[in-house]
Amino acid sequence: MKISRGFASDNNAGVHPEILKAIAEVNQGHVIAYGDDPYTAQAIDKFKEHFGNDIDVYFVFNGTAANVLGITALTRSFNSIICSDLAHLHVDECGAPEKYTGCKLLTVPSPDGKLTVGGIQGHLHGFDFEHHAQPKVVSITQATEMGTVYRPEEIREIADLVHSYNMYLHMDGARLSNAAVSLSCGFRDITVDCGVDVLSFGGTKNGMMFGEAIVFFNKNLTGNFKYIRKQGMQLGSKMRFISAQFNALLSNDLWRRNAKHSNDMAKYLEEKVKHIPKIKITQPVEANAVFAILPAESIPELQKQFFFYVWDETTSEVRWMTSFDTTKEDIDRFAQTLENILGERS
Amino acid sequence: MKISRGFASDNNAGVHPEILKAIAEVNQGHVIAYGDDPYTAQAIDKFKEHFGNDIDVYFVFNGTAANVLGITALTRSFNSIICSDLAHLHVDECGAPEKYTGCKLLTVPSPDGKLTVGGIQGHLHGFDFEHHAQPKVVSITQATEMGTVYRPEEIREIADLVHSYNMYLHMDGARLSNAAVSLSCGFRDITVDCGVDVLSFGGTKNGMMFGEAIVFFNKNLTGNFKYIRKQGMQLGSKMRFISAQFNALLSNDLWRRNAKHSNDMAKYLEEKVKHIPKIKITQPVEANAVFAILPAESIPELQKQFFFYVWDETTSEVRWMTSFDTTKEDIDRFAQTLENILGERS
Amino acid sequence: MKISRGFASDNNAGVHPEILKAIAEVNQGHVIAYGDDPYTAQAIDKFKEHFGNDIDVYFVFNGTAANVLGITALTRSFNSIICSDLAHLHVDECGAPEKYTGCKLLTVPSPDGKLTVGGIQGHLHGFDFEHHAQPKVVSITQATEMGTVYRPEEIREIADLVHSYNMYLHMDGARLSNAAVSLSCGFRDITVDCGVDVLSFGGTKNGMMFGEAIVFFNKNLTGNFKYIRKQGMQLGSKMRFISAQFNALLSNDLWRRNAKHSNDMAKYLEEKVKHIPKIKITQPVEANAVFAILPAESIPELQKQFFFYVWDETTSEVRWMTSFDTTKEDIDRFAQTLENILGERS
Amino acid sequence: MKISRGFASDNNAGVHPEILKAIAEVNQGHVIAYGDDPYTAQAIDKFKEHFGNDIDVYFVFNGTAANVLGITALTRSFNSIICSDLAHLHVDECGAPEKYTGCKLLTVPSPDGKLTVGGIQGHLHGFDFEHHAQPKVVSITQATEMGTVYRPEEIREIADLVHSYNMYLHMDGARLSNAAVSLSCGFRDITVDCGVDVLSFGGTKNGMMFGEAIVFFNKNLTGNFKYIRKQGMQLGSKMRFISAQFNALLSNDLWRRNAKHSNDMAKYLEEKVKHIPKIKITQPVEANAVFAILPAESIPELQKQFFFYVWDETTSEVRWMTSFDTTKEDIDRFAQTLENILGERS
Repeated sequence: MKISRGFASDNNAGVHPEILKAIAEVNQGHVIAYGDDPYTAQAIDKFKEHFGNDIDVYFVFNGTAANVLGITALTRSFNSIICSDLAHLHVDECGAPEKYTGCKLLTVPSPDGKLTVGGIQGHLHGFDFEHHAQPKVVSITQATEMGTVYRPEEIREIADLVHSYNMYLHMDGARLSNAAVSLSCGFRDITVDCGVDVLSFGGTKNGMMFGEAIVFFNKNLTGNFKYIRKQGMQLGSKMRFISAQFNALLSNDLWRRNAKHSNDMAKYLEEKVKHIPKIKITQPVEANAVFAILPAESIPELQKQFFFYVWDETTSEVRWMTSFDTTKEDIDRFAQTLENILGERS
Repeated sequence: MKISRGFASDNNAGVHPEILKAIAEVNQGHVIAYGDDPYTAQAIDKFKEHFGNDIDVYFVFNGTAANVLGITALTRSFNSIICSDLAHLHVDECGAPEKYTGCKLLTVPSPDGKLTVGGIQGHLHGFDFEHHAQPKVVSITQATEMGTVYRPEEIREIADLVHSYNMYLHMDGARLSNAAVSLSCGFRDITVDCGVDVLSFGGTKNGMMFGEAIVFFNKNLTGNFKYIRKQGMQLGSKMRFISAQFNALLSNDLWRRNAKHSNDMAKYLEEKVKHIPKIKITQPVEANAVFAILPAESIPELQKQFFFYVWDETTSEVRWMTSFDTTKEDIDRFAQTLENILGERS
Repeated sequence: MKISRGFASDNNAGVHPEILKAIAEVNQGHVIAYGDDPYTAQAIDKFKEHFGNDIDVYFVFNGTAANVLGITALTRSFNSIICSDLAHLHVDECGAPEKYTGCKLLTVPSPDGKLTVGGIQGHLHGFDFEHHAQPKVVSITQATEMGTVYRPEEIREIADLVHSYNMYLHMDGARLSNAAVSLSCGFRDITVDCGVDVLSFGGTKNGMMFGEAIVFFNKNLTGNFKYIRKQGMQLGSKMRFISAQFNALLSNDLWRRNAKHSNDMAKYLEEKVKHIPKIKITQPVEANAVFAILPAESIPELQKQFFFYVWDETTSEVRWMTSFDTTKEDIDRFAQTLENILGERS
Repeated sequence: MKISRGFASDNNAGVHPEILKAIAEVNQGHVIAYGDDPYTAQAIDKFKEHFGNDIDVYFVFNGTAANVLGITALTRSFNSIICSDLAHLHVDECGAPEKYTGCKLLTVPSPDGKLTVGGIQGHLHGFDFEHHAQPKVVSITQATEMGTVYRPEEIREIADLVHSYNMYLHMDGARLSNAAVSLSCGFRDITVDCGVDVLSFGGTKNGMMFGEAIVFFNKNLTGNFKYIRKQGMQLGSKMRFISAQFNALLSNDLWRRNAKHSNDMAKYLEEKVKHIPKIKITQPVEANAVFAILPAESIPELQKQFFFYVWDETTSEVRWMTSFDTTKEDIDRFAQTLENILGERS
């Protein structure tokens, strides 16, 4: 099989060699299954190094589960969850949140993927009225599905609003590392220090093979979580192999190196294509995604050589994602191909 | 960390080296996420080699999900599911089947873990009566939770009964390889050829890192399954790393070598301890488990040196599981220790 | 207790005397519970008189259940349901549809309460894509929550669109009688003859004590419905007392007399207040509701004498509902009071 | 239609005239819907007269809902519920408890319908173990499905056990009035005073048209219940018509008169048939049911003249229920017919 890399998704990348090495290293003898093993204890300690000691951490297999089960801990079925109309939670989970939590999702139009206090407030009514699903969670994505990044003060403002209504702030951090790198800050600065209550911490998109973490900053919420995870079909038996990955990711700045490289490549891609006349970059490039509108007829030709997704058929907007293993050469070739295609057409 | 191996569970073992090697080999470049990749296509072909072409196969993360989502495809919430009172589905999933399918579980007392036609028939009533949850699925475990194995004719008899009521036969095959080795047969001989409709095919307990397969022998049942898997939070993004494992497991007889070794070690363990006066083996040793009653006071001492679980506190019955990496030396040491403990006490 | 009537809701009215009489008349001896009684058979025949023989009818206790269980018959949990952002289904059921069906609700902004083909089409994408909840049902309300009424051709156009996507059209007919009277037509003309697949037929708001019907025009959908109703906690034991009410409502034009009176009173109310300078009627008065904006400060004073609800606090829009027992005198007094309050203020 | 009365079910009876009269009396003018009306306030006060002031009461449409929603308030989906293998909750609700609560039901064989401390204890294990559904509720039925009655001390013993495990005691009191009459006590004596936490209080089987009450003796459990009821599709709009029935039932000893008559008729029936040689009464007649084994071939003939249900086909055991409107003449005719049938056969 020919080795190639495209711009479709950071999920299309493989596993970082340091992660694979960490997996191999824990493959020794027997340890207790289901998380009561020393590697998992180490991984939890790693999370505490980054997020502070006052957390509870649970590992699950994937991001869908991290979001859905984290929110399960915050809600009863008569609650509602407020999120962006572009939130992965709403558009890309085949209705898993509704099925599993029983809750109603309420969306706010947010062209750049970011919720605002004003947008949220439109749904903050009907409290104490039994005919109305009771708002309980606001979920934001950091970095957003549009490759944008919330500033700490934006998160804090949302958290303050949310808490003033006795609600919880959930963060889908599938790409939290990209956001932290983008803001040149640590994880705490954009999570617990801004009032986030529960975080889905992403591993897979940043070089892991599988595995996401649910980080609770409010330990009152976790009394039942071990049952929620098990009943939620997300308790891995050979847990050490998730834990080893997190140990590696959170050591030696691997999370940062991977995310920084990925973000840098997105910036580099933007630089290489933004001057091309027929291309319009549509979102600020703050993480590892570049959104662009290009001539509709050029897309299939470009896709013949590089795999990526059309974001919006009606406007010919496409999404190009970079990942930890994207190279400058990949981008140079991509940009050159794009210029050739567009040049031929002019 | 000192390397050790116990007899607690085949989940406590690590990953077979051939599996780990297969994972590393597919870690090249980008492939489409979520299963539309060549490695997954290969793995599906491997399943067809073993089970015939007329199947549909879906990979999920773990056994809980394999069972629950497979049964979701067979049921509506007003159905009931009949299983052994010892079925993993009933006793070890924290109620995941009820929560996710909405169905009622009906159990049959089965001391050796095996359902019988007579036992099932006790629940086959109330059809067409709307006050009664409608029986729709019988689920059997092969090899059973008690380390016993259904003979093909036993499965066929159950399947015939089940199908005569327009119901489905589900098999929890978390240890199907151990059963096939025990019976010196292939997978088909104890699944599709006996009338099984849906199979959970286990990988993790037989040397994989993670990953189970749901095999549908009745393709009428699978029209919606891709949505069930996704909404069920079990669609892995970097799917190639599950697929590569199945490719390895189902090639070069690795599944058979691992299961045979594990079964052989259980037999060896039985041989080594059955003559000890104070020990009573309580189940036929047909797969990779040995169940035994031993003096209550000897258990804690033995557990100081070897990790294993007490199965029934009231009778001092314990379960000893072997796995693909158990060695004769492990067992020799274990048997010697056990003799020492019991000898001292006499 | 002083007898009074307000304009808050047609649910605040009592029971029409002919309904109460019908209840008393069936209170004789024993009949089989749960619907296998002659009165229920009669009621079903009544429905067939109105809707044609090719239907299946099931009675439930209330409108929430009629909508939720009817849609349960049409969906699996990975489906989505498209409705108006003002639909009772979305805003007034405390999330019952999500909890019970597991489906995602997708809303279309619709200021007059009516869905349009264009609005629906915005959600008709992502078919066959497992990450996306699969659209399966469009639900419209007739008459709408805003007191407006779909013309038959509007329903037909929506039905054609819906069916071209292999989806179903559900109608919340809590006030279907009001719509039929408004359009001077029969029930068939705005349901089955326009392509509606499943109807919630409202009794309670039109003079019954309790009881709604789910009418299936597509009998392929009803094979399981008796189980759905029972498991849905909506199978009444002394069913005859719902059936007797429907027998009365659907006999001697009682449904029409009640709805006509109610609609006429809404028109009369509109006539009496629309000339008042400070009042703006905001929706066409086509059924039994009048929506109006009036000076914010006048609302509490008016509410002291007549109970009604503010629809939108931000715009001072109120909703006045009439019912089968509203009298012209009620309205005259109401209009006079309103004029007095507003006159004093000018 | 010929007026007749059988022995099939107390649900086959109609409505007591005092109940019907009470309904008619509240059919005056408008009152606020959904329970914020004076009749509902009165009915709640009536419950407080009987059960003490420290309760919360909610009305729902039927017994399925009373049980399921009451238990919803006590559980999260990872809990289990322990009940008799004959409990209505388990055998007659089409799986509604599992579907709605997500919980696992665990049953205890109980030939007379009564749970015992010993039987419950068999399920009290696996606490704090995430693989195991966590026991949280024990549900008992008073009077039981077998027409037997728990003595207060039996309930207290169960309650003490249950509370010692931090669990809740739920009582299905569909026939609580029959039990209270049987024991010559008040409602408190066999509910709150014995440690019951939540009660389903039955109205329908004791002469009401529809309507059951959920009575919470532990007000900590009710903070969310109004949402649970609404989302559970059980909030009636014209609530006054349920409330009026409870007002009548709980006034002037109507509940007691009805239940006493019904119980007396069961005793009378027992007296009339127990001497017949071929008949064996199989349960103590403590409430309003008589269970008997009679020659299999006599059953169809008897059913031609009197409707009743066969309880167990395999043993020719039948159930005869009496109700508030059963007459001595009904029973005399029934006994005579039975004697004739059996006599002819000897």
